[in-house]
Amino acid sequence: MLNKNLKSWIEVDANSDFSIHNIPFGIYKDNKVKHRACSAIGEYIIDLVELADAGFLSVDKSILEQQFLNEFISLGKPSTNAVRAKIIDLLSNDSDPVAAELKTNKELFNKIFKKQVSVTMLLPVRVGDYTDFYSSIDHATNIGTMIRDPKNALMSNWKHIPVGYHGRASSICVSGHSFHRPKGQQKPADSELPVYGPAKLLDIELETAFIIGKQTQMGDSVSTSNADDYIFGMVLFNDWSARDIQTWEYVPLGPFLAKNFASTVSPWIITLEALEPFRTKGYTQDPKVLPYLEYKGDRNLDIKLDVFLKPEKGEENHICSSNYKYMYWTMEQQLAHHTVNGCNINVGDMMASGTISGPDPKEYGSMMELTWRGTKPITLKDGSERKFVNDNDTIIMKGYCEKDGIKIGFGECVAKVLPAK
Amino acid sequence: MLNKNLKSWIEVDANSDFSIHNIPFGIYKDNKVKHRACSAIGEYIIDLVELADAGFLSVDKSILEQQFLNEFISLGKPSTNAVRAKIIDLLSNDSDPVAAELKTNKELFNKIFKKQVSVTMLLPVRVGDYTDFYSSIDHATNIGTMIRDPKNALMSNWKHIPVGYHGRASSICVSGHSFHRPKGQQKPADSELPVYGPAKLLDIELETAFIIGKQTQMGDSVSTSNADDYIFGMVLFNDWSARDIQTWEYVPLGPFLAKNFASTVSPWIITLEALEPFRTKGYTQDPKVLPYLEYKGDRNLDIKLDVFLKPEKGEENHICSSNYKYMYWTMEQQLAHHTVNGCNINVGDMMASGTISGPDPKEYGSMMELTWRGTKPITLKDGSERKFVNDNDTIIMKGYCEKDGIKIGFGECVAKVLPAK
Repeated sequence: MLNKNLKSWIEVDANSDFSIHNIPFGIYKDNKVKHRACSAIGEYIIDLVELADAGFLSVDKSILEQQFLNEFISLGKPSTNAVRAKIIDLLSNDSDPVAAELKTNKELFNKIFKKQVSVTMLLPVRVGDYTDFYSSIDHATNIGTMIRDPKNALMSNWKHIPVGYHGRASSICVSGHSFHRPKGQQKPADSELPVYGPAKLLDIELETAFIIGKQTQMGDSVSTSNADDYIFGMVLFNDWSARDIQTWEYVPLGPFLAKNFASTVSPWIITLEALEPFRTKGYTQDPKVLPYLEYKGDRNLDIKLDVFLKPEKGEENHICSSNYKYMYWTMEQQLAHHTVNGCNINVGDMMASGTISGPDPKEYGSMMELTWRGTKPITLKDGSERKFVNDNDTIIMKGYCEKDGIKIGFGECVAKVLPAK
Repeated sequence: MLNKNLKSWIEVDANSDFSIHNIPFGIYKDNKVKHRACSAIGEYIIDLVELADAGFLSVDKSILEQQFLNEFISLGKPSTNAVRAKIIDLLSNDSDPVAAELKTNKELFNKIFKKQVSVTMLLPVRVGDYTDFYSSIDHATNIGTMIRDPKNALMSNWKHIPVGYHGRASSICVSGHSFHRPKGQQKPADSELPVYGPAKLLDIELETAFIIGKQTQMGDSVSTSNADDYIFGMVLFNDWSARDIQTWEYVPLGPFLAKNFASTVSPWIITLEALEPFRTKGYTQDPKVLPYLEYKGDRNLDIKLDVFLKPEKGEENHICSSNYKYMYWTMEQQLAHHTVNGCNINVGDMMASGTISGPDPKEYGSMMELTWRGTKPITLKDGSERKFVNDNDTIIMKGYCEKDGIKIGFGECVAKVLPAK
């Protein structure tokens, strides 16, 4: 499906996340604009309000001026895909007189295209409900091995159910924020009673999330074969986790304060259509899943994922390379499962993958796994060690697909940990 | 704090939930009005838009015409309490010329006061995030006794943490709805593999929920002594639960599809100010809680709670009487705990109590407990038995406070179970 001949007349670095094959959606602000829908090409954002104003898009301008993309996404895939196709056409086909004007009219160009470094990207959607899955078999096996029983690392339900739980929507922040180390109850192994204080074991979770593009009514279910109609696109997701708070609180109703203090998402929604050429085969599901979870074809995605840790005054340290293809459960299965009981979904709902670990120890998606619960610290370039995340550390997550020399990327998912308040 | 001399010039039945001491807030619609803020007195709703239009309230009308009360609540307690005080004044003091006009001008009266039976109440708030606690010690002890170990019924964290988890906001419905029995995976005891089908063990959970009235920023915490400033009011809450789905899915990350198919809330938000005179002592907390959870005074509330089950063509059967005073953890403690890690809260967030059971078997707040996992079925007036909830059963929850002959009530929280789709 990749058209290798497709090129933009705007120069795009071969290493850029934002080739003409991407054309993601986001919301930006700058010193003139409070919030506007945009796309990206190379080092530019594309202001969709200005593009509509200039007559290139047939979308109601007011929809592009909202604080979030929810209303735009709600137009439906035929409309949003048409916008994407139109942008691709304008950027690739300069023999078209309209595109030619865009290329040659400098004033018009500067209205529509702004350098990415000159704008601030905002949270792309108003998240109604946020769900986190637990769908990487390598991750679940690692955690089960460490904290339960290496011989029975996976719970008995794990291969039958894409296990998931509800998370907190209010504390999902866009890349570029910082937050204070959470405080809370922990129970030290040598103490009979819990203590209160800043979390000592602050961890990351390398995840992606998909964003719902079409709502359902209560009582409706989405099948695996229809699921893609309901998935608008994907972002990177860092599900910050305080392991010491989690260990003490999570029985029997799941993680709560260990996770709801902050989550970080990348600002660009990469459409499912842009990702489609990068489909790949996933793990074989054995035992066979129940019929409502069956799916056809290769439904995993080859998304290369990297995590970097940057100390306050140090360089970036590459600490993990993973890949979305290691997911045991696909997005389509997650969505079919989420709605099989009639649970209704809304545009803007966010559903995260759970930590994405691969089989190799360098592919583990959390510090908990990378340092094996702190028993094998990571040594950074500056000589310091990390068992978990320290105050003033910045975590950077990146993701991209590459095939036949064509690359599309997610941009960055960055957040910094400040000392406890 | 109860002023026994306070009487309304509108006749209010002694048994009404909506005495002049209540004056709750809600949203109604009828054949003329799409959605409007309202209050209630006796058998009437009070249209706040008309009241403002007639010059009795100094609130921007557009705020009262919203689909939800979030914007109204966001005005802050000084403003919303002033509205409540003004209504109480208008309804009690007919020597005031303004109130006298309201009483005597029939046309004006009919604009402002509409019979409750002639309108439909809507969901009062847009719920951003929904949290469910697990704060009744009798309930937690019953469940622990049944499914774990009678000798160690409570988990080791239970008396230290107001255990809670995130739930699904999208499927919270206002009283009066019906929903289809959820389908999903269950693992029968005699089967090695899970099966898929309609839940067999559909249960209720008698709860209340409080609604956040003031937002915080990420990183902020609310103390137990300040918590009441952030709690706008309370509603009744039925946390529908599919026990067979729950048993199979909930390890290790908590309930998910077992609960997110539907929750039911009563339409009237009873303000914390109206409830204040009904404060009472709760269970003694032993062991002592951590300092951030300590509180002063009697912070429980004497709210009498009742549950009725009505079969398709039968009468209402009273199946449970409980009381909010049996809560081990108070709302103030729940909110302090929820925010101790810096988790931000927004106006309209809903935080439910968890099933409220009392010490007596007639005070158990779920079918699971009332029938002790189905081993002691309830016999209804029509001679039929119930272990859990059947198709076409309607569940009605009611709640009220009563003291010194003064009553304020919550109205009803009603929903009907339809057969699986």
